[in-house]
Amino acid sequence: MHLAERICRLGTETAFAVSAEANAYAAQGNRVYPFHLGDLNIPTPGNIVEAAVRALRDGKTGYCSNYGVPHLRETVAADVNRSHGTHYAMENVVVEPGGKPTITKFIQAAMNPGDEVLYPNPGYPIYESQIEFHGGRAVPYPYREGVHGFEIDLEALQNAITRRTRLLVLNDLQNPTGAEAHSEELRRLAHLVESHNLFVLCDEAYFHIRYSGTSASLASLPGMEERCLLLYTFSKRYSMTGWRLGAAIGPAWLVDTIAKLNVNDESCTNHFIQYAGIEALTGDQAGHADIIRTLKERRDTAVALLNGISGVRCFTPNATFYLFPNVTELMARKGIEDYSTFRISCLRETGVSFCTRLHFGRPAEAESARYIRLAYSGIPTVDIKEGLARFKRFAEG
Amino acid sequence: MHLAERICRLGTETAFAVSAEANAYAAQGNRVYPFHLGDLNIPTPGNIVEAAVRALRDGKTGYCSNYGVPHLRETVAADVNRSHGTHYAMENVVVEPGGKPTITKFIQAAMNPGDEVLYPNPGYPIYESQIEFHGGRAVPYPYREGVHGFEIDLEALQNAITRRTRLLVLNDLQNPTGAEAHSEELRRLAHLVESHNLFVLCDEAYFHIRYSGTSASLASLPGMEERCLLLYTFSKRYSMTGWRLGAAIGPAWLVDTIAKLNVNDESCTNHFIQYAGIEALTGDQAGHADIIRTLKERRDTAVALLNGISGVRCFTPNATFYLFPNVTELMARKGIEDYSTFRISCLRETGVSFCTRLHFGRPAEAESARYIRLAYSGIPTVDIKEGLARFKRFAEG
Repeated sequence: MHLAERICRLGTETAFAVSAEANAYAAQGNRVYPFHLGDLNIPTPGNIVEAAVRALRDGKTGYCSNYGVPHLRETVAADVNRSHGTHYAMENVVVEPGGKPTITKFIQAAMNPGDEVLYPNPGYPIYESQIEFHGGRAVPYPYREGVHGFEIDLEALQNAITRRTRLLVLNDLQNPTGAEAHSEELRRLAHLVESHNLFVLCDEAYFHIRYSGTSASLASLPGMEERCLLLYTFSKRYSMTGWRLGAAIGPAWLVDTIAKLNVNDESCTNHFIQYAGIEALTGDQAGHADIIRTLKERRDTAVALLNGISGVRCFTPNATFYLFPNVTELMARKGIEDYSTFRISCLRETGVSFCTRLHFGRPAEAESARYIRLAYSGIPTVDIKEGLARFKRFAEG
Repeated sequence: MHLAERICRLGTETAFAVSAEANAYAAQGNRVYPFHLGDLNIPTPGNIVEAAVRALRDGKTGYCSNYGVPHLRETVAADVNRSHGTHYAMENVVVEPGGKPTITKFIQAAMNPGDEVLYPNPGYPIYESQIEFHGGRAVPYPYREGVHGFEIDLEALQNAITRRTRLLVLNDLQNPTGAEAHSEELRRLAHLVESHNLFVLCDEAYFHIRYSGTSASLASLPGMEERCLLLYTFSKRYSMTGWRLGAAIGPAWLVDTIAKLNVNDESCTNHFIQYAGIEALTGDQAGHADIIRTLKERRDTAVALLNGISGVRCFTPNATFYLFPNVTELMARKGIEDYSTFRISCLRETGVSFCTRLHFGRPAEAESARYIRLAYSGIPTVDIKEGLARFKRFAEG
């Protein structure tokens, strides 16, 4: 018995190994400060929970359409049109069991083997994994430190385009950098997409996790609705990560294909939780506001403390629940070259657990700056203070 | 913008078109007798619903492991060991969002492009779709009418094996025929698997939907545990189709690969419903017994009425909730050659809606007998009586 050859091209989230190490360390009786977790430790708002309970007791326990419940599809289309200024109808929405299925199905539906696909690096590791697993060529494009935060290196992105480039993965409001494209960058991206005849996966998982201003989408620009598939998810916005509820939104020809993949892969998304999704979008938004308030306090606390550590430089992202501080100077001062050594030393000496740049794709050869990624979604403010005080002693000791 | 070429190899469940036609006909104010539905119109047992409510309110709403909740994995392993006499541990179980994901992930993990995969025809259409979608060669093996029911044509299966045959899909307790392999057939299958070094997907979706006797699994035979991946699902046994809860069970090297596919495809299965799965298996079984009692009454009613129609011959399957009557004589008498014409005439004249043999794979060239498939999972006994009385008038009229 052998595994299929394609399995050797399948990647994973190496951040899970960080979780495993942190858990093992905690199991030995040590205190751990979990800055590695991409999950929220905030409960799902009660009105959403109770909507699921009602649907469940009401017998919404049989199959539903592979496209999802029509009322939810209409509600999602209206929600996106409100925030994006787009013109989607129910026909442009297919419900998925979470955000990730949209990545996999986008690649399966739109990429041929040998096609080149631009993807963000540092970035969420599943893009590269799925591109390569399905026989594509994953071509990274970098981010760089700008004045107020990270930004896509648009010149590098443009230079990476060849005649074989077909698709672009854009994760604006980005994990791990918190980067957000401004209107001029979006305009330039739209121009590149148009002129090179690309199609775009817009991973908007963090679109509604923001603390000031408003999020923008490439899909809102002229001509882009026909060239974008939106990855939409309830996971972060309503603290529903474990529910597995999301949607793919785009041109009907692509949405229909994704719905056909649903028939093959999972029949449909859990039926009764789709009614909780309707409540999430149309009911009281106090729960969402609480989530944002909690996360903002954590962000402000963590950024201030990190910037108070000698050799650490950290932006204040307006969105996501991630920080990607530059620790080049700190690592140099500690005489540590290697990311893993740095991470594990810090865990062992302080209990502070985080991911590093290595968990978000292979660094470019010329990349000399060093970064770590801290998530503040799974750790209360009091522990952020305690953990980062320890980290400061470690850093400056 | 073009779809990927692989999409032209993607199949679907054409039975959905039958549903759509029946719904359209009903929407015109006509009475429809839904024998086409593979869903259950029986509510999920209350103890299972309330276990989900408790887990939901208890905050089991964040991510869980990509393998599933450990307690559920242990419980599933114990359940299978009890019915199969196998020796699975938690490490052999990975939780999936339903039964179908195990088909897709088995093919992705174990089949290389160009490999030949034996699959049942007539059979569930997703096997052929996923084999071809992922670049394999789908090689059908037939069923034939035996004395007491359908049986695998083992000689034909054996003759279909070549040097390129790598995998076998076995759906014992079969959709659509209700076929069930007896101990001698299983022994011969195990011998074929062993001698040709095959690996087997055992789709056991209907393992616990049976009305007398006990189900048997190929995995129970000596040496087969290492050569089988079991598709396990809560959907039918506990009337939980819309919950999307199942598992893949097999050797750890394959289960680990499927868990890695989970990381890529959907992170994890919905967290709180896994506690409902634990209740389903360890709690009161009265709900399951009710489901079986209800289905048995329907089966007995439907089989008796079908065999009372001139030109129809129907076995009494001990398992599944499907009937696959031979209607060769009836169609000949009505002068209808074509399956679609027969099906649609019947719908229009009687409201009785069913699938035909065509919805379960392409018929072999030499295949002259005609079959239709009736599901009694979604229609109460009183409507079975009324519908089949109309069908009798249509058939004999």
